[in-house]
Amino acid sequence: MTSLLQSLPEFLSIEAAGKLLRKREISPVELVDAALERIARWNPGLNAFLTVVADRARRQALAAERAIRRGNLSGPLHGIPISLKDNYWTRGIRTTAGSKILTKFIPDEDSQVASRLARAGAILLGKTNMHEFAYGITNENPHYGPVRNPWVQERISGGSSGGSVVAVATGMGFASMGTDTGGSIRIPASLCGIVGLKPTYGLVSVAGVVPLAETLDHTGPLARSATDVCIMLQAVEAKYPKGSRTPDFRNLRKCIPRRFRIGWPKEYFFDRVDSEVRQAIDAAAKTLESLGGRIEEVSLPHLSESVEPSTNIAMAEATRYHESQGYFPARAGEYGEDVRKRLEMGREVRAVDYLNAFVVKREAEHEFQRAFARVDVIIAPTLPIAAPRIGQNEVMIGGRKETVRSALVRMNRPANLTGDPAISVPCGFTREGLPIGLQLIGARWSERRLLAIALAYEDATEWHKRHPVLR
Amino acid sequence: MTSLLQSLPEFLSIEAAGKLLRKREISPVELVDAALERIARWNPGLNAFLTVVADRARRQALAAERAIRRGNLSGPLHGIPISLKDNYWTRGIRTTAGSKILTKFIPDEDSQVASRLARAGAILLGKTNMHEFAYGITNENPHYGPVRNPWVQERISGGSSGGSVVAVATGMGFASMGTDTGGSIRIPASLCGIVGLKPTYGLVSVAGVVPLAETLDHTGPLARSATDVCIMLQAVEAKYPKGSRTPDFRNLRKCIPRRFRIGWPKEYFFDRVDSEVRQAIDAAAKTLESLGGRIEEVSLPHLSESVEPSTNIAMAEATRYHESQGYFPARAGEYGEDVRKRLEMGREVRAVDYLNAFVVKREAEHEFQRAFARVDVIIAPTLPIAAPRIGQNEVMIGGRKETVRSALVRMNRPANLTGDPAISVPCGFTREGLPIGLQLIGARWSERRLLAIALAYEDATEWHKRHPVLR
Repeated sequence: MTSLLQSLPEFLSIEAAGKLLRKREISPVELVDAALERIARWNPGLNAFLTVVADRARRQALAAERAIRRGNLSGPLHGIPISLKDNYWTRGIRTTAGSKILTKFIPDEDSQVASRLARAGAILLGKTNMHEFAYGITNENPHYGPVRNPWVQERISGGSSGGSVVAVATGMGFASMGTDTGGSIRIPASLCGIVGLKPTYGLVSVAGVVPLAETLDHTGPLARSATDVCIMLQAVEAKYPKGSRTPDFRNLRKCIPRRFRIGWPKEYFFDRVDSEVRQAIDAAAKTLESLGGRIEEVSLPHLSESVEPSTNIAMAEATRYHESQGYFPARAGEYGEDVRKRLEMGREVRAVDYLNAFVVKREAEHEFQRAFARVDVIIAPTLPIAAPRIGQNEVMIGGRKETVRSALVRMNRPANLTGDPAISVPCGFTREGLPIGLQLIGARWSERRLLAIALAYEDATEWHKRHPVLR
Repeated sequence: MTSLLQSLPEFLSIEAAGKLLRKREISPVELVDAALERIARWNPGLNAFLTVVADRARRQALAAERAIRRGNLSGPLHGIPISLKDNYWTRGIRTTAGSKILTKFIPDEDSQVASRLARAGAILLGKTNMHEFAYGITNENPHYGPVRNPWVQERISGGSSGGSVVAVATGMGFASMGTDTGGSIRIPASLCGIVGLKPTYGLVSVAGVVPLAETLDHTGPLARSATDVCIMLQAVEAKYPKGSRTPDFRNLRKCIPRRFRIGWPKEYFFDRVDSEVRQAIDAAAKTLESLGGRIEEVSLPHLSESVEPSTNIAMAEATRYHESQGYFPARAGEYGEDVRKRLEMGREVRAVDYLNAFVVKREAEHEFQRAFARVDVIIAPTLPIAAPRIGQNEVMIGGRKETVRSALVRMNRPANLTGDPAISVPCGFTREGLPIGLQLIGARWSERRLLAIALAYEDATEWHKRHPVLR
C-alpha cells in the first residue's frame, strides 16, 4: 500500500481520502505517516507546527484502522489527520497561543471544537504556530519564529492562523481550525492559496479557545477545497438555528443555485487595491457571471466609518482579557513588542467610544442586511495585496503608502463586525507566483449558499489545485 | 358630595378611593379637583410639579365620571389622579427631564408606562420636578429650583424622583412613577416617608423614558402604601415572565407568608449608619420577627468592591447617551455644574474598566443569588441618614465625614447593579421629625413576596399613616 500512497496525488481531498479509506485502498496509518513525514521534512523550514503529537497520532491512526477494518467508518473525518491552531485548548497537549506566557500551559480540558473533531474521528497531528495571542496578522512570532509562506519563503504566511494555513497548504494534514477576529482565517488563506471560512458569529463554538476580543472572535475551518471546508464545518458547527445547517458535503453540489445575485460593493472594498489583485477579482467575477451570477452594485455607504470603532472594540476587549488573566501589565516584558504596544493602546480606549462602537456595529449590520435583501453574496478581494516580505512594515498600493497591518485587515474586519460569514478562495497568482484570494461574504446563517457558490467557482477554475513546490 | 370629601381622611388610599368611586360616594372630578387644589396651594413652596395639566385632567375626570355613572369602572386606577416624573415621554405634554436642554421638548409619543396608565384610566395631573436628567440624588435643580422636603422644608426631598415623591407624600395625587438608576426611587421615598419600589430589571418598560444609564435604569411606582404600589405595578408591568406576576391587590394580603426568612447582611449595608436610623431598622427587624420572620445572617463579601465598577457603568453610559444626542459637550454650558462635571468624568472612564465592571456585576448577581437561596428578603436601611439640608455637601456618620452623594447612593446601587427588586417603606422618624426608610431587597421576579412582606410590616406599624402637616 505504501507504493499506492506514493502514486496518489500529493494533495488528496478529504472526500477522495474517505473513498479510499472506505474501499480499504489506503489506511489511516498511511495518511498519518505521510503527513508526519512531510512535517519532518518541511516544518523545520516553514515553522508551521509548534507541537507535533506523532505517537498519539499514530496510536489513533491504528485504532481508526482497526475500526475501519471492522466496518466502522464513522464519518468523513474518520482517520483524517488534521491540526489545530495553538489557541484551541487540547487536553494534555501544550497550548501556547503563540505566547511565551503560556509556553508551558497544558490544559486539562478540550475546547469544544477539539472534542467535536475527536468524536468525528479526525486525528490530531499537532498544534500550529500563530501570531502571539492571535493579536496580529503577519505571524511573525517573536518567541517561536515566523511562519514562512510556502510559495516564497521570505514572505509572510499571514496570520494569525498562519501555521494552520501553511500546514494545510503543504499537505501536513488535510485541514485545520483557525480563529478570525479581524481576518485571521481569511488573510493567511488568501496569502497561501487555500480556502478559509469565517462562519456566522456563534455558529462554531469559541468555548475553550483563548480569546482575543469576544465580540469579534470567530472560529472556523481551513482546507484545500470548499467541500473539505464543508466537511469540517459540519463536524464542528453548533446545531442551531434549525434550518440553516451546513449541507452534507455529498449534497453541496446540489445546493449550487442556477441563478444567483452577486453584490459588487460600490464603496470601501475596491478603494485601494493592487492592480494584479484587481484583475484577478475582475476575472473571478466574470467566471461567476458565466455560472449564473448576475452582478449588481450594492451600497455600503457608512462602512468606512466602522474601521475605528471596530478597532476600539478589539483593543479594549483584548486588553481587558489580558488584564483579567493577570498577564498584562504584570508580565508586559514577556510579550512581543507589537502585541505589548497594542495592549497598551487598549488601555486608552474610552468607554464612551467602546459603547458608540456598538451603535456603529448595529448600523453596519443593517447596511449589510439591506444589501443581502438584494443579493446572495458580496464579492470583494480578501486582501488588496499578495504576501509582503517578512519584516516589511509598509506597502505601496496604487501609489499610496499604507501599513501592512491596515492593508491586510481592511477588507476582513467588516465581516467580523457584522458577524456575517465570509470565505476566501484561491482566485489567481501574481506574476511573482504569489496566491490571490477572492472573498465572498454572505448573509448570516447562509453558509450553505456561500459554500455552494464557492464550490461552483472552484469547479470552474484550477487555482485551488496548484500547490507550492517545496525544495 | 363636597362636604363628604372634606370629611374624608386627607390621604385616601387608591384602594379606599376605588371603593368610594364604585359606590359613587365620590367622583373622579372631586378627586382631581382636590388634588389640583393642593397643587395650587402647596406646589409654589414645595416645587414638586414642573408642568400641571389641569384642564386636561378635569376633562379626563369628567369622562371617567360619565363612564362610572354608566357602570363602566374599568379597574382600580380608573379615575385616580396621578403624576409622572418629567423624564417619561408624554404625548403633547412638555417633557423636560429636569433639564434646560429639553425645556421646550414636547414628545409626539407616550412612553409605554404613560400609555399603560392612561389605558388603566388613571388621570395625569402633571409632570414632576427631578434632578437634572435624573443624574443626581439631591433634587437641587439649577434650572427649576430644588424640590423641598415637606417634613422640613429646608431639607432636600432627595432625588432624582423628588417631585414625584413629594407630590405623593402631600396628597397632590395618589401615586407617581419614578426612575431609579442608583436609588432615585428609594432615596426620596425614604427621605419623605412614602413607599417606593424599584422592580426587577426589565419588569417595567423603560421605552420612551429619557435614559440615564441603560444597564442600571429601572422604572417603578411610588405611592403611600404597599397596596397602592401593587396596584400601580400591576398596571405598568410587562406581562412576563409567566408565573411571577404581581398579584391582584385584593389578594396581596393572602400572599403574606406565615413564616419567612430575613437575611441580615453581615457586610456593607450596616457599615456606616447613623444611630437613629440603626435603631429604627433594628426595631423594624423585631417587628418582622414578630410577624413570622426568622433572621439569618447572610454574607455579601465582595459587595464593597462593586461601588467603583457600578459608578463606571453609570458614568460611561450616561456620557455616551448625552454625546449621542448631541447635547454634550456641544451644549455643556446648559447643564448644571454637578451634572456637567459627572458627564465630563464619564468621558474618562476606560473601556477596560467598563468591561471589567460587568465581571463584577455578574459576581454581585451571584452573591445575591446565593443569599436568596437561603432567605426571602434582605433587610437594610434605605439610607444611612435622614434628609440633609438643601445645599449641604457632606455629612458626618459615626464620626466620619462622607459626601451626601456617596452616603445616599451607597445602599441603593447594589440592587441596580444586580437587577433585584428593592422596596423602601417608612419605618420611623428621627427626633427632628424626619422620615426613615426600611429597605427590603428580594430575588429577581419576587415582587409578589416582597410586596406581601412590606404589606405585613405596614399592617403592624403606623409609620406610613403619618403625613406632613403643611402650613
